[in-house]
Amino acid sequence: MSQFRSVNHPVRRVDAYEKVTGRAKYAADLRFDGMVWGKVLRSRYPHARIRSINAEKARSLPGVLAVLTAQDVPGAKTFGIVVPNQYLLADDRVRYLGDGVALVAAETESIAQAALALIEVEYEELPGVFDPLAALEKGAPTLHAEAPDNLAVHHHVQKGDLAAGMAEADLVLEREYRTQFIEHAYIEPEAVLALPTHPFGHYLTIYGSFQNIYNIRRSVAKVLALPLNRVRLVQATLGGSFGGKDEVMHAMAGRAALLAQATGRPVKMVNSREESILESYKRHPYILRYQAGVKKDGTISAMKIEVYADAGAYASMTPFVTWRSVVQATGPYQVPHVRTDIYGVYTNNTYTGAMRGFGSPQVCFANESFMDEIALELGMDPIEFRMKNALVDGSVTATGQVLNRHRVSLKEVLSQALEAVQYQDKVREYRRFNETNAEKKRGIGVAVSYRGVSLGGEGTDAAGAYVSVQQDGSVIIHSGLVEMGQGLRTIYTQIVAEELGISADRIVFLDTDTSVNLDSGPTVASRSTIMGGSAMKDAAGRLRLTIHGVAADKLEVAQDDLTGEAGIIYSRNNPEKKITFEEAVRHTALRGLRLTELGWYQGPKVSWDEEHGQGDAYFTYVYAANVAEVEVDAETGQVEVLRFTAAHDVGRAINPENVRGQIYGGVAMALGYGLLEEVEMDKGVTRNLNFDEYFVATTMDVPDIQAIIVENPDEFGPYGAKSVGEPTLEIGAPAIANAIAFATGKRLRELPMDLERVLLGHSLRERRTKRGSVER
Amino acid sequence: MSQFRSVNHPVRRVDAYEKVTGRAKYAADLRFDGMVWGKVLRSRYPHARIRSINAEKARSLPGVLAVLTAQDVPGAKTFGIVVPNQYLLADDRVRYLGDGVALVAAETESIAQAALALIEVEYEELPGVFDPLAALEKGAPTLHAEAPDNLAVHHHVQKGDLAAGMAEADLVLEREYRTQFIEHAYIEPEAVLALPTHPFGHYLTIYGSFQNIYNIRRSVAKVLALPLNRVRLVQATLGGSFGGKDEVMHAMAGRAALLAQATGRPVKMVNSREESILESYKRHPYILRYQAGVKKDGTISAMKIEVYADAGAYASMTPFVTWRSVVQATGPYQVPHVRTDIYGVYTNNTYTGAMRGFGSPQVCFANESFMDEIALELGMDPIEFRMKNALVDGSVTATGQVLNRHRVSLKEVLSQALEAVQYQDKVREYRRFNETNAEKKRGIGVAVSYRGVSLGGEGTDAAGAYVSVQQDGSVIIHSGLVEMGQGLRTIYTQIVAEELGISADRIVFLDTDTSVNLDSGPTVASRSTIMGGSAMKDAAGRLRLTIHGVAADKLEVAQDDLTGEAGIIYSRNNPEKKITFEEAVRHTALRGLRLTELGWYQGPKVSWDEEHGQGDAYFTYVYAANVAEVEVDAETGQVEVLRFTAAHDVGRAINPENVRGQIYGGVAMALGYGLLEEVEMDKGVTRNLNFDEYFVATTMDVPDIQAIIVENPDEFGPYGAKSVGEPTLEIGAPAIANAIAFATGKRLRELPMDLERVLLGHSLRERRTKRGSVER
Repeated sequence: MSQFRSVNHPVRRVDAYEKVTGRAKYAADLRFDGMVWGKVLRSRYPHARIRSINAEKARSLPGVLAVLTAQDVPGAKTFGIVVPNQYLLADDRVRYLGDGVALVAAETESIAQAALALIEVEYEELPGVFDPLAALEKGAPTLHAEAPDNLAVHHHVQKGDLAAGMAEADLVLEREYRTQFIEHAYIEPEAVLALPTHPFGHYLTIYGSFQNIYNIRRSVAKVLALPLNRVRLVQATLGGSFGGKDEVMHAMAGRAALLAQATGRPVKMVNSREESILESYKRHPYILRYQAGVKKDGTISAMKIEVYADAGAYASMTPFVTWRSVVQATGPYQVPHVRTDIYGVYTNNTYTGAMRGFGSPQVCFANESFMDEIALELGMDPIEFRMKNALVDGSVTATGQVLNRHRVSLKEVLSQALEAVQYQDKVREYRRFNETNAEKKRGIGVAVSYRGVSLGGEGTDAAGAYVSVQQDGSVIIHSGLVEMGQGLRTIYTQIVAEELGISADRIVFLDTDTSVNLDSGPTVASRSTIMGGSAMKDAAGRLRLTIHGVAADKLEVAQDDLTGEAGIIYSRNNPEKKITFEEAVRHTALRGLRLTELGWYQGPKVSWDEEHGQGDAYFTYVYAANVAEVEVDAETGQVEVLRFTAAHDVGRAINPENVRGQIYGGVAMALGYGLLEEVEMDKGVTRNLNFDEYFVATTMDVPDIQAIIVENPDEFGPYGAKSVGEPTLEIGAPAIANAIAFATGKRLRELPMDLERVLLGHSLRERRTKRGSVER
Repeated sequence: MSQFRSVNHPVRRVDAYEKVTGRAKYAADLRFDGMVWGKVLRSRYPHARIRSINAEKARSLPGVLAVLTAQDVPGAKTFGIVVPNQYLLADDRVRYLGDGVALVAAETESIAQAALALIEVEYEELPGVFDPLAALEKGAPTLHAEAPDNLAVHHHVQKGDLAAGMAEADLVLEREYRTQFIEHAYIEPEAVLALPTHPFGHYLTIYGSFQNIYNIRRSVAKVLALPLNRVRLVQATLGGSFGGKDEVMHAMAGRAALLAQATGRPVKMVNSREESILESYKRHPYILRYQAGVKKDGTISAMKIEVYADAGAYASMTPFVTWRSVVQATGPYQVPHVRTDIYGVYTNNTYTGAMRGFGSPQVCFANESFMDEIALELGMDPIEFRMKNALVDGSVTATGQVLNRHRVSLKEVLSQALEAVQYQDKVREYRRFNETNAEKKRGIGVAVSYRGVSLGGEGTDAAGAYVSVQQDGSVIIHSGLVEMGQGLRTIYTQIVAEELGISADRIVFLDTDTSVNLDSGPTVASRSTIMGGSAMKDAAGRLRLTIHGVAADKLEVAQDDLTGEAGIIYSRNNPEKKITFEEAVRHTALRGLRLTELGWYQGPKVSWDEEHGQGDAYFTYVYAANVAEVEVDAETGQVEVLRFTAAHDVGRAINPENVRGQIYGGVAMALGYGLLEEVEMDKGVTRNLNFDEYFVATTMDVPDIQAIIVENPDEFGPYGAKSVGEPTLEIGAPAIANAIAFATGKRLRELPMDLERVLLGHSLRERRTKRGSVER
């Protein structure tokens, strides 16, 4: 029995009904009176100079209302939250195929499409660069004047004395891993609808499929040369985002708003799937060079890591994505001497940015594969090797942070996962199986992770909440963090219901609306529950104080003797003394007391010293262990994931069913990342533009998933809750890679582990030094 | 030079541009995709039983989507904030001609109109009652089961010993006055647009010409059987209201929402002017019987007042309107012994409710006419008589309230008004004029008032505000009180600009939206500035503290040394130490501090003892003096107001130009009330349904108005501001009546003072006792 009444229970999602019945309105479903359609003409080359644009023919096509180019942008030509170097419309250069060159607004979508073909653009093609290592070479073509070396960012972590650490080692192993471009593959392509001016006010309104709605507003305001209060963004139901509906929506919202301004009409823009895959940013492909020094007893003495991230044409979130990578690159292990460098590099590929996991899936794939490789070299059980080096309470991370403010539960989650799969039995069973089967091989693989919660040391971390009790006791809440399928509205509703002692159906969640909600930073970094949830608890708790104060007065009992449950406020000592929540609210209103509260939560102090590559990077961490069991077809290379077990310490599960949902979804994405997905980027040209050629995991691919929820309440989280969104997909791929290695003896160091790679085995350089060196 | 930078200056209205350019969208301007039209079938009789309704023919008319009657109302059949006895759709009775009987939704307005004619309603006409005195007689037809005597309300005030007071008097005078039905005559007839469900949420949204939007929401929620959080009302630009867009909009919003639910389509309803005048409530006609005992020296020793108010068919705001009347009936005078009774009575006339002035114009007309009549009988100058009895600091009102918390500035405003017109010179001048002119007669008349500010002793009085500073230093504000032309948005913008030390153009005012704003009670009783303005000051002041705290830290100065002006925060002691508001905001955001605040203001304590008719009725009062100068055409009875002087103590003029605007508008309405306006109610049938027959004052009727702003800052108001909206129209009519009496020697005791009445003179009973009695 939970000590709670609403939180910590598997309540139904508050948005379930509208979604499963198809009543939910996505941005593409919206229609406004007098609405017209917008379309964007994109680049013909990955890298080119624009000599001229002639839009005369397009403009004279009947039904065309406007054709706009860069010169029509009234404000800043570029946007970008970190580095403002992305053009709303290409000025004189295009840097990737998705760059927008011109905009059309027309009475119908097909006229707009036809008009695009009539816009004459004269290009001068420029040599491009499509590989981050090549881009760093002298004389490589460059993309941005402010980055003459094509370097978007370089972060490092420096701990101890690397040379001394390596000298201590009995074995130094070096491996290179590579990850691929992948697509967010949200079901809903990008859509937006911009109204030229609000009917009653002095602001533009833009409805759309927005994730980081405040970031998007900032960019739209900038390119339109408007203050933030005159740009109002309202989020439509979001059909998936996974970090993906940020910068691509800056461009789309800004363009639609520009067309709305120009035409005075509501302008709708909806990307086709092909447009979406072509234009939208991807997950960064990484080249990861790992070197570790280990002692005979299995102790890691040092690690040296060098990572190259392909940023594509624009900075987007590269500086932040790579920062998380550099902080977490050594994984959840005690490593006394560390040097990690990561480079984000501009190329003429599609730009890369935020995606669920945010720089961790790449380093987890490398590091957790590497751990198995080291164990193998040492002749050690990979579990034993991990347990030996695992972070524990009081450990010091690679960035010098002492982990003494939360339970470091790595060993606990790993033990629980192993126990659930009966790991040692499985190891024996699969070995036996493999001995007797030639065509099919089975394997089991493990991967673990730790993950910093929320934004960490490089950003301001705070969130707000709004809770308003109406005079009939019904409640309106809203948040500046957004629902994107992760269950935020349900979680917040549970928290408010818990605090007020009412049932969740008394609560209505208001639209996400930048003019109404409190700017709470981005909805990223699995921070919704711990940050926004804490703010909701704060707001609702204040209201409880007010309302219970009146109730205590009415009931003539001490206020701290009161509790609320199912809409009744009663005395714990004398349950006969009670009043309904509605009645207490009515009296509160009659007394002229305020029934609306703002909540606020500031993240605990963190620190980051970029110069020395050290700091208390995150205020808390979550721990996870995944176990993959696979069967490999030795002839075709087909990998079937038989079973998948994922244990996550979430602090406290506000909604256990939702946590399981996150795990199921995260594992499915991890499986796609590990085995199936790759955006084929051929010299800047995306070859697979739809789901007939780009493969995401379907229900047929997803195995039985055993989700194990571990709860070590965190001092900072609401009711102890931490996070779960992103940890669920960061270690699926290495767990599968380790299981494949178990099954086949082949170490795959490049993603995805598709049929060809499984059949051919590793392709990347590996090297062992001391006790002999192997080059394969 | 004002001590302030934004308030107390005549800044331009923030909504001026959109209104004068026609860009402002009123509810009737709104269009939504898929929108259909709603129409209401109204009663054929002022009082009847409905035997049957047959809607078959209407339903089968092509283009008709729904025909609804009372049985289709899912929730309560009736609404009403004070007495819930008004039907959304008539059940089995109609009680006045405006009652709604059936609703139609159709693809076009003309189809809807045509369908109304096809609805067959079988009525049984019932005897009606159309006069409040008749309605109180035994055996009169009754309207409501809960009021078998047709009495909607009875209030009284009781002070001292009336009989003793009358016994002390040397003269007891008795007069009867009557006032008429008048129309609010807002330029914009009622309009509403209801959306069946919000695109992303679980609530109905209704746009409309709403005044008391939270009251309207309450009624809509009730008739639709929905909690308050599932009904969202958004106010469109309001084209005038003057108290009028309350209950009539409850009905209209509820009906449109019902049709939207039934059809699943956005439903628009727009009243024609005729529909508006037929259905909407009016100002209460009063029958006022005044008796006063006075001593030879001019001291009033006692007053006895009996008032009958025609409530029409429904209670509406009658209980509150009459309460203000009963409290203020003796005017701003020291009267030791008082008995006042007021009766609100149901009749089958159009119902009556809130209108700018709210029960005071009627009693002011009676009392201020009466004061001149008494002075005349005493042979005393009316000014001298008023000065003798005027309330002063520390006086006790008729309700026993000691006026010791504000400056009782009655004599000051009267003196200023008189001085401005050079009153005594004018008296002499007009006497001379009248001696030498037979055809034209000139006169000067004075009237004064005191008026309780805000809701007073019968209601909870509190208001909220929301101020949000965006990260670029631009500001979004909103309020649960509404802009209805009175200048609320401008006033609040000035207050926030003042507190934050920024220019008003950095501030955007958000729509009034019940799901977003804080329920701040009704926008009535001239309470916007003192209540909502105080809440705005509270919210903005909190933000100033936060932002200046960061600025002080950055500038290394004491926070209380900082001040803000024109977007610069600087040290008073060392003005070189400064930081822009934007920069200070940027740092505040970077520190993760909250940049949004709620403000709240609870009205100071008031009290009302209904049983004994005593109490501290209002927490503060405003004082006014009007002087009218008229010329009467002795042959036609035509009255021309030559000049009008109005002095008002507003505490502090937040926007002096706006205060003058209120005075100009109020005087124009007072002039219409006094001379021109009357809704002709002929046994429940309204005879003049448009402005060709109902005469409001035009620019041709309105004289030069001299507005005198007196400022005695009030301890409760923001920067000392009190109110001005309603005082401006409550004493125009008696000032004109007194001027006409001066000019013609005829005492007019009935409104309007039209040509006929001016020619014929008084028609109502008057009586003088002691020292002889006169019956005319």
